[in-house]
This record gives sequence, structure tokens and C-alpha cells, in this order.
Amino acid sequence: MAKKVQTAITPTRTDDYPQWYQQVVKASDMAESSPVRGCMVIKPWGYALWENIQKSMDAMFKKTGVKNAYFPLFIPLSFLEKEAEHVEGFAKECAVVTHHRLEAGPEGGLVPAGKLAEPLIVRPTSETIIGDSFAKWISSYRDLPVLINQWANVVRWEMRTRTFLRTSEFLWQEGHTAHATSEEAFSRTEQMLEVYANFAEEYLAMPVIRGRKSDSERFPGAVDTLCIEAMMQDRKALQAGTSHFLGQNFAKSSGITFQSADEKEEHAWTTSWGTSTRLIGGMIMTHGDDDGVIMPPRIAPAHIVLLPIFRKPEEKEAVLAYTRKLAEELSQVTYHGRAIEVEVDEREIGGARGWDWIKKGIPVRAEIGPRDMNEDSVFMARRDLSPREKRGVKREELLATLPAILDEIQQSLFDRALAYREENTRPIDDKEAFYAWFTAENEDKPEIHGGFALSHWCGDGACEEKIKTDLKVTIRCIPFEGEEEEGTCICCGKPSKKRVVFAKAY
Amino acid sequence: MAKKVQTAITPTRTDDYPQWYQQVVKASDMAESSPVRGCMVIKPWGYALWENIQKSMDAMFKKTGVKNAYFPLFIPLSFLEKEAEHVEGFAKECAVVTHHRLEAGPEGGLVPAGKLAEPLIVRPTSETIIGDSFAKWISSYRDLPVLINQWANVVRWEMRTRTFLRTSEFLWQEGHTAHATSEEAFSRTEQMLEVYANFAEEYLAMPVIRGRKSDSERFPGAVDTLCIEAMMQDRKALQAGTSHFLGQNFAKSSGITFQSADEKEEHAWTTSWGTSTRLIGGMIMTHGDDDGVIMPPRIAPAHIVLLPIFRKPEEKEAVLAYTRKLAEELSQVTYHGRAIEVEVDEREIGGARGWDWIKKGIPVRAEIGPRDMNEDSVFMARRDLSPREKRGVKREELLATLPAILDEIQQSLFDRALAYREENTRPIDDKEAFYAWFTAENEDKPEIHGGFALSHWCGDGACEEKIKTDLKVTIRCIPFEGEEEEGTCICCGKPSKKRVVFAKAY
Repeated sequence: MAKKVQTAITPTRTDDYPQWYQQVVKASDMAESSPVRGCMVIKPWGYALWENIQKSMDAMFKKTGVKNAYFPLFIPLSFLEKEAEHVEGFAKECAVVTHHRLEAGPEGGLVPAGKLAEPLIVRPTSETIIGDSFAKWISSYRDLPVLINQWANVVRWEMRTRTFLRTSEFLWQEGHTAHATSEEAFSRTEQMLEVYANFAEEYLAMPVIRGRKSDSERFPGAVDTLCIEAMMQDRKALQAGTSHFLGQNFAKSSGITFQSADEKEEHAWTTSWGTSTRLIGGMIMTHGDDDGVIMPPRIAPAHIVLLPIFRKPEEKEAVLAYTRKLAEELSQVTYHGRAIEVEVDEREIGGARGWDWIKKGIPVRAEIGPRDMNEDSVFMARRDLSPREKRGVKREELLATLPAILDEIQQSLFDRALAYREENTRPIDDKEAFYAWFTAENEDKPEIHGGFALSHWCGDGACEEKIKTDLKVTIRCIPFEGEEEEGTCICCGKPSKKRVVFAKAY
Repeated sequence: MAKKVQTAITPTRTDDYPQWYQQVVKASDMAESSPVRGCMVIKPWGYALWENIQKSMDAMFKKTGVKNAYFPLFIPLSFLEKEAEHVEGFAKECAVVTHHRLEAGPEGGLVPAGKLAEPLIVRPTSETIIGDSFAKWISSYRDLPVLINQWANVVRWEMRTRTFLRTSEFLWQEGHTAHATSEEAFSRTEQMLEVYANFAEEYLAMPVIRGRKSDSERFPGAVDTLCIEAMMQDRKALQAGTSHFLGQNFAKSSGITFQSADEKEEHAWTTSWGTSTRLIGGMIMTHGDDDGVIMPPRIAPAHIVLLPIFRKPEEKEAVLAYTRKLAEELSQVTYHGRAIEVEVDEREIGGARGWDWIKKGIPVRAEIGPRDMNEDSVFMARRDLSPREKRGVKREELLATLPAILDEIQQSLFDRALAYREENTRPIDDKEAFYAWFTAENEDKPEIHGGFALSHWCGDGACEEKIKTDLKVTIRCIPFEGEEEEGTCICCGKPSKKRVVFAKAY
């Protein structure tokens, strides 16, 4: 085994990945758990990241003609019940509002009072309540398509939660569209998946596999669920976004009808698509290292931190002035259409200061001591390289090249993640090898320690179920990429025409 | 009475103000009621306005050092109970979650199941849950101040609701800060009220009176509530934002303590401050006329709509091309740091099209017919003037002067609203005149039909209560402006040193 290096995060990824994740979240000061079961508090550094995700993704939505709106938090139980598969899918995880006030209880303290005639469900997703509006808005083919998105909180009561990845309340966006034809709706479903894939790859530097879910993994009530899947550094899959083709299922249950051009009454075709604060967990697990988070520059809350250093009191004023002036100059520089965000950390707490920013994952750090100042330069470090790898850079050069440096970091994160996924993905045609791939636990041989298996599947749910029971491995998606080829099902040996992605998953 | 002019909204403001309001909301397509009691659906035109409000206000917050974060939707009942006045204030309007799943009921259908050990309250405001985080975050005076804001939905179960003005669920921002001293906390309370006042006046073009609430109107649990109050066109007051100095009340109930510079354990001093989607209702009622909404340009979702007009098919192509090119050119123009937002309405539905945009309140409309095109000009109308007041403007002039025209509209809306408030505000020193001012219902004499009364008040809650009972008139605020002066209470005749603002209110 390699000699252990001191790291900022304990345990390391190889020692205990789930624990490493919790410690990274904590050390980066992005979020904390709350006294409310399964709910998180998103702290400023984490929320600023979410704001950047929102801003970038929202602009991508709007470019495709989508408009934002807002629908009620509560869904009457009878609405949820309209679509049978849908309510079945969410019944086990619903927060239910049953009363609308509090009154003094018989034993002191307050108790729920004012029982509602009909229970209200805190939205786990909004197809049924938005469907009700769509039914009112749409009467003619001229009203179509309707292209709506909402940024909102949703609640799915989870028994086992993990910050950002699976929480009872989370923040997300949910898009909902209605169309005159099946073709148009399906093509919108694909279009939004492509938006998600581009966002994941270009902004989060997270390579994803685009594909379709098997029947058992479909969204409750959907005809087809498309998804993007990413590989985390424990080689498990994370579903990072889904786009659902709902056919006419929800249009029928909500009564979304329109008069067609040839004056027939028809049901609309609808879609829905969502991504959530889970993306933040995915970003952490894709790029983070044993020193903490690594933020891709395109969505980092800040791009560079300046760390003024002085030992003698007489140096302080000059170094601070120089640093603040540089911060001002840097914030005039543009990076992908927005101003460079600069942090200046003037705390006098020694080396812990630099490590705080390493753990938070800020892309670039620059120390400025009296000598640097005299040479009109800074001592720069990139977060994607070793914390010890620093170099002197002239001030003018920093101002001129910072955007290019950030782009380089962005690209290197993506390349690293893609290489990691490719190293840990393999076609497997032999059942024994398949089982070994997912059960090997030998830390010295990470290359046989699981990952993504590209294997043939006959399409039978029974085979899927057996593999899930035996190995906790599921079909992450039937990928769009990859030609059809003759093969045999990894489970039952029957003929198959397509490899699918098998993996353990979050 | 003046001859009735045909208006786009029925009834008019003078005929039936509450009904006028509902019709304006509907006609502008900003929102609609939902099947969930008291909850609204905010439609794209209304939500885009909210997004602009958020963007502008958020930037103002951030300039003062505030950072955004996100806290749980649910508050355990025991947390709400920690501050006695606070829970008392909200107990009657709480949505209570009591179960976490649904199961098949004895009579078919689904019923709530999985009873929670402790009921959860859907946040009506977040002092108690945020206080819990503050208690964890703060241990030394070096951690202070903590300056946090969250954009969120909240629920206050209202029996009588009205879109935007009073809804069971609404969107808002709530700021929460903690400080080492009472002085610093109070000065932050004042600072944020000033942010609200500036926002209301500069962006919403809504003049406001800054002041302090009387004891009976204070936020439950606060030491002091500051507020801004605006006059609507029915001469009622609308509270448009509040900023609360919470003293050490919530710090004590949540255990927010810190070690001071001289190493003593002390309770922090906290503040909270909020504004909501209610601002949209206020904007509508401040500026709207009998033809619909009038949007102040600084927060309008779009600034100008281009309406291509053609009668003969051979004109169509040229006019559309000219219009689209102009839209492109206009969107290159900058207005207060953002690009001019242009709508192009190519629907071929005749005159209804222009009226749609009048009802929506877009600041400027420009018609472009073949003749205009040949003269390289447009036929322009301002929403703040009569719908019939249009003038030809050369294309170059429009491009050069549109920002100035928008500023003129913004200013004229503010001036008009301020003049209206001043016309309908008067010092009243005589009890009989005071009662007459608030009871007169003669439509032909609007000058005696109520408004704001600046009258002396002795400070006794009994006088306040009597006036409220007799007239449904409350003390809107004890204004910051206005010198102390000797006077006698409008109710009991005892000595008073200050006039306060009396009005009917939303």
C-alpha cells in the first residue's frame, strides 16, 4: 500500500467513502443536518452554488421557450389519486397536512386542531396540480405547446437520508409541458434530457450517460423515462436528472383536452422533467478529493480567494491595500459572461485559512506576502492540483490569464472524471465475471472492484429483479449510444440485441 | 357624474374596487386561484415580475453583506412553542403535518398513515428553526454578525384570501441576523427597512411612509416592528414590508449565545425582516387603472411590445422582417444595467392584441404597419397615458430614447402615486371630523371619503382599540418623519406629542 499522506479529510475516500462524503460536506460548510427528520439546512456556500446552478440552467430552459410559474405547495389527496400508478408510487413517502391550526391540549401544550375536510399532501412532484391548471389554460391547438417550469421545494418522506443526495425536503425544478402530438411531446422529452446532459457536462464537469429507464425504474405514471447517469468515485451510479414522456396518462386523469385543427376533441400529450439539489451531491462525489470539495469554475460561488500574508505589523497596511486593489481589478475581469467572483480572506488565523478554502473547493488561491507584493506578483495554487503545487505569477499575467486558467481547471476536472468512468466501465459477457465484478471487495485491486458493466439484457423484468436481489445492482439505463449487436442476456442467456448499463446506485 | 368611457376592466375602480382588483389580476394573466383553499397559481407574467423583484432586491441585500441560505420547510411544534408570544401569534393559522404516508382506508381510497411522534408545522415564518442553526453557528463575538436571508414559500392558513394580497401560501424572503449588541441589531433593523423603502420607491414606484408599529400591531415575539406603508387607490393602507428588532427574545428561546470580547457568555441580539408576493398586489393597486395593470418599467417583465400590422398578404413578410430586426436592435439597448426586454406579438387577431398588452401593463407599445415601415418609424403608445394617445417615432429615435422614455414613465407613476397619497392624507385634530373622514361614503365627494389621517394619539391601547372597533381603522405606523408637537389624542383628548398614521388597511 502507498504511504499515507496527511489529508484534510478523515477518513479518505478509500478508507470509508460514505463517511468521507459526510465529512467533506461538513468541512466545506455547504450544509448541515437539521432537527427536522431528514431535512437539511443549506448554508451560504452551498446555497450560492445552488443559485449558480439555477441561474445557468434557467437560462438554458428559457432559450428553449420555457417560462417559469409557481403552483401550490399542497395537493388535495383526491388529485394525487387521479392517476393510479402515480399515487401508488408516492403513497409511502407523503407528508400529510391534516389540520389547520393549533389549540391548547388537555394535557397542556398545543395540539393540532381544525381538521381539514380533505387531507393535503405536501407536493412530492406536481403533475396532478399543474395538470389542473393546464386543463383550464388549454382549449385549442392554438394554445399549444404550453412550456412551464417551476423552481420549488418538494417533500418525499425518506427513511434513510443523506445530505444533498436523499433528503425528505429538497429543492428542485420541475418542468411540465403539453403538446398537440405524441411526436412533439417525445421530442421535447429528449430535448430537455439533452439540456440536462449539457448542463452536467459543461457546468458541473460531470460526464453522463444518456439513456432510457427500464420499466421497473420508470417514473410512476410515465410512459417512458429518460435519464442521465454519472459515475461517482466509489464507482456507483448517480441518477442526475430525468425527463419523462407521460403520453396521455396525466392529460386523461386531469382532463387536459384541446380542439385540434380539424375540430376534434383530443387529449394533450405531456412531459415532465426534473433535477434537484442532488446535483450538488453528485458534483461533490465526482470531483472531491481527500482534501475536500473541488468546485468546477463554471458554477463555483467564487473563483479565486486572495490571502494577504504579513508577519510584521508595518507590512499589514501595504499588503492589505495591494490585495484589495487586486481584488477590485480581478472583479473587472469577465469569465463566461459573468464577473470573476473574488473572495478576500483577511482573517489572521495562520495556515488554517488556506485549508478552509481548499476544503471549500475554490478553484484558485493566491497568497500575497510582502515579497510577492514587491515583485508585483502572487503565489498561486490551483485546487485541481496538489495543495503543495504553487507558483509565482505576475499580477498582470494573473489578470490576463485567469479566465484561461479557470477553463483549464474546468476541462481537467471533466477529463479526469471521464477517464475515471472509462477505467471503471467494462463490457462483461460472462455471468460469473459479472457477479465477481460487483462482489469483489479487494481494496488493493480497485480495477476489479465494481463499476459500470455494459452487459446484454433480454428485456425480462425477472432477470432484472434477480440481479437486483443478488447483487443490489440495477439497470441504470438502456443507453442511447452503442449499436445494436447480437448477444445473450447476462442473467438467463436468452438472446439480446443491446447492452445496458448495470451498476450499484445511489 | 362624468360621462362613462368604455374601459377594458369591468367594474371600474370607483364602481367596485375589490372586484376591479380581481378582474385586473385575471385580465393581466398574472395569477389565478387554485383548487387548494386559499392558494394561488402564479402564472408566467406574474412570476416573471416576481423574478425581477427577487433579482433587484436580492442584489440590494447582498450589497449590505447578507448571504442567502435555505432552512427546512417544517418546524417541529416544540420549536414554535419555545417563544410564547410567537406561537400564540401563529397558532390559529398553522398547516399541521401529522402523518408521513398514505395507506388504503377501510372504505377504499387512501387515508393518512404513519403518525408522526411530533406534529410538524409548515413554516409560517422561520425565526425558531433558523434560531436553532444560529445557536450552532455562533459561539464567539468573532462569529458575529451573522447576516442571512432565505427566499421561500410560507403558509399561514387564512380564512379570507385575495390573490397576492392575502393567500394561505405565499412566496417571500425572510432575513435573519444576529449581532453582538443591541445597538448594532437595531441599526440593522433600520437599515433593512430603508432597503425596503428604497426598493418600493425606486423599483415599484410606490411611495411609502416609514415608521414603527404600535404594540398591538407588532410581530409576535418582537420588541419593535418597523414598517413601510403605502396608499392604494381605494385610499386604504397596505403594509408593504416589515423589519423586526427581536431583542434577545428569540436568542433566549433558541439558546443563541456567544462569548464576548471580555469573555462573558451573552445572548445575541437578533432581527428579522420580510417582504412577499403581496408587493405585487400593492403594485397593481397603486398604479393600475380601469384598463388594467400598469407595470413600472424598472421591474416590468418586458419593456416594450412590437405589434406588426398588415392587411394584405404581400405586406406580411416585409413588416414581420422589419419588426423582428427592430426587436433585435432594441434588445441591444441597455436600461438600468439590463437589456431591454422586447416582446413581439405576431398573432393575427386584430385589435384584441393591443388590448391584451394594455391589460398586462407593458410600459410601451409600438405598432408597425407598412406605412410606418416605409417611413422607418413606429406608432408608439405609453401605458401611463391614455390608450388613444399615440405618436409616430422614427426608429432611430426610439432606439436612442427608449431608456429615457421608460425612466419618464417610472417617474410619472411615482409622482402620480405620491400626489394621490398627499391629496388623500390630512392632519385631523377634531374627533367628529375624524369619524366623518372614515365613514363618509359619498362617491361624488372623494375628498371626504377617507384616506390617511395624521392625528394625535396618547399611546394608550384602549384608544387604539376603540377606534378599531368603531371604524375598522388602525394605527398603520408611528411615522419617523414629522416633528414632535403638542396635541391631544383624537380619541380620549389626553395630551400627545406625536401624530400617527390612521387608516383602514389590507
